[in-house]
Amino acid sequence: LTVRALVLGAGGFIGTHLCRALAERDYEVVAVGRSRKPMVCGGNEGAISWVRGNFADRKLLQRALEGCSVAFHLISDTAPALSNADPSADVRETVIATVQFLELAKSSDLKRVIFVSSGGTVYGIPSQVPISETAPTDPLCAYGINKLMIEKYLALYHYFHALEYCVLRVANAFGELQSTHHQQGVIAAFMKATVNGEPITIWGDGSVIRDYIYVGDVVDALVKASEVADLSHRVINIGSGTGMSVLDVANAIQDISAHRLEKCFTPARKVDVPEIVLDIGRAKQVLGWAPSTPWQTAIERTYRWYDLHARDRVREQLGPICLPG
Amino acid sequence: LTVRALVLGAGGFIGTHLCRALAERDYEVVAVGRSRKPMVCGGNEGAISWVRGNFADRKLLQRALEGCSVAFHLISDTAPALSNADPSADVRETVIATVQFLELAKSSDLKRVIFVSSGGTVYGIPSQVPISETAPTDPLCAYGINKLMIEKYLALYHYFHALEYCVLRVANAFGELQSTHHQQGVIAAFMKATVNGEPITIWGDGSVIRDYIYVGDVVDALVKASEVADLSHRVINIGSGTGMSVLDVANAIQDISAHRLEKCFTPARKVDVPEIVLDIGRAKQVLGWAPSTPWQTAIERTYRWYDLHARDRVREQLGPICLPG
Repeated sequence: LTVRALVLGAGGFIGTHLCRALAERDYEVVAVGRSRKPMVCGGNEGAISWVRGNFADRKLLQRALEGCSVAFHLISDTAPALSNADPSADVRETVIATVQFLELAKSSDLKRVIFVSSGGTVYGIPSQVPISETAPTDPLCAYGINKLMIEKYLALYHYFHALEYCVLRVANAFGELQSTHHQQGVIAAFMKATVNGEPITIWGDGSVIRDYIYVGDVVDALVKASEVADLSHRVINIGSGTGMSVLDVANAIQDISAHRLEKCFTPARKVDVPEIVLDIGRAKQVLGWAPSTPWQTAIERTYRWYDLHARDRVREQLGPICLPG
Repeated sequence: LTVRALVLGAGGFIGTHLCRALAERDYEVVAVGRSRKPMVCGGNEGAISWVRGNFADRKLLQRALEGCSVAFHLISDTAPALSNADPSADVRETVIATVQFLELAKSSDLKRVIFVSSGGTVYGIPSQVPISETAPTDPLCAYGINKLMIEKYLALYHYFHALEYCVLRVANAFGELQSTHHQQGVIAAFMKATVNGEPITIWGDGSVIRDYIYVGDVVDALVKASEVADLSHRVINIGSGTGMSVLDVANAIQDISAHRLEKCFTPARKVDVPEIVLDIGRAKQVLGWAPSTPWQTAIERTYRWYDLHARDRVREQLGPICLPG
């Protein structure tokens, strides 16, 4: 029996990869996004129905939900560093629309919602690393607050309406297709600068440590979260489980590119907590998931893609975007 | 030097008591509420300026903030049991308006915000009692989710803009003036029924345990939170620290009233967690606060008030409402 899956935020970085992966696994995919259908060559594209529209559009969502047993919620309207400039933007745009979506889900065929939360922001400044899912959640950006709020609403709908859910608190995802907008995605920003022969910008001294996880592994976790029968925990960290400084990342890219990177240091941002490394033990236990793409493989694959799609084509997506393998 | 205090939600149960207490302590009170000025006789009423209007009204708030060094945020648009019927109502009405208020506060004289959160709902079903402030926060109603999100936004504005704040997670407050609207306030509901000779309604079997705290003690904690120099913790439980079942409460009221109460049992509500008792050690340590009104004194005083204001006068407030001493 074919499973029909709804992907909300299907035109974004993770969303595009997810749709392709689901289609390859013979899901019927209803892909909802604000932009035109992303042109990604290869894969089983025929299995993806593209619905262009806004997540807050009740009628559109109601139609899109028809026959779907699982939904992936990958929507945010802003990004960590920018969210504090208009701290209620995501409340207005995303949280309220999510509650509306959950209300619609009550009277639909939907059995489970998989939500991409933010392992990098919901915890705030951790008192210890690696951070487990039971650590305090004190976000230092509106983006993180809103992710957390949606997590709580999912728990509410599970409690009252038996709607299954799984929250993946994803660390710093990277890989092919990631845009450099919104000051999010340091690897994407560094690679884009490198292939264009521009200096890379480092906030602070480059000692900030993050947990970088390849998008292919994130997609693997998303699919597992939708398929695993017994969700003994519903809030699960997804990361590499290891930390790497921004300088380490810059050096790794320099090694691949064989160029000497010019580093431009700018003042540290208060929104950047010093260290995030996620404890991924629960993901192994509940989902049977662990990252399977070695760092070197992932970073080389990603670099190749940026090199191929150098300059304007990265954003404007003038032609079909080719994903490897 | 006179301190000017802003009270948001001044016409409500706790707000009315708070305004009176502040005025008696020679604060200048700017009281913002949606309704007409509550007519409360006695006290230093001249110190209270009443501003009728909506918390979401930016211009009104900006004016009200002028010269205020402390603000008390007592606003919620809904109540625990009812909040799940329209789960994004408080997001729309209260959370977004609170962020707008905090934005205004950045460029005002405001030094500190005291926020009344909900000790009865932010924790959800506790894994142990008494519940400390570090316990997991998994609310089972939209009301609790929204209280929690406002707590997080206060932390954000403290971190980025050095706006001092203190969150009081208040247990089940009771006392004179409490309305019986919104299915909130079991003591108010029982007393109102009793003085009117009606049966009392008990959800479930009456074994649900709550932590009841007299409004005079809550107000005392609010004032202390605004005055204490060093807030070594910013999230503080306010309760009696002891639990009492709904049946215990009914029996206590029966003893005072000297009537035999007719109890009407209705099915338990899923929103009512079995037991809430707050650990109030932090309040003692940080605020030097402990409840000072004995249960019997508080419940008798409250009963006297309902007896005096029996029937329609309780809600309609046709004449001035007299508070004891």
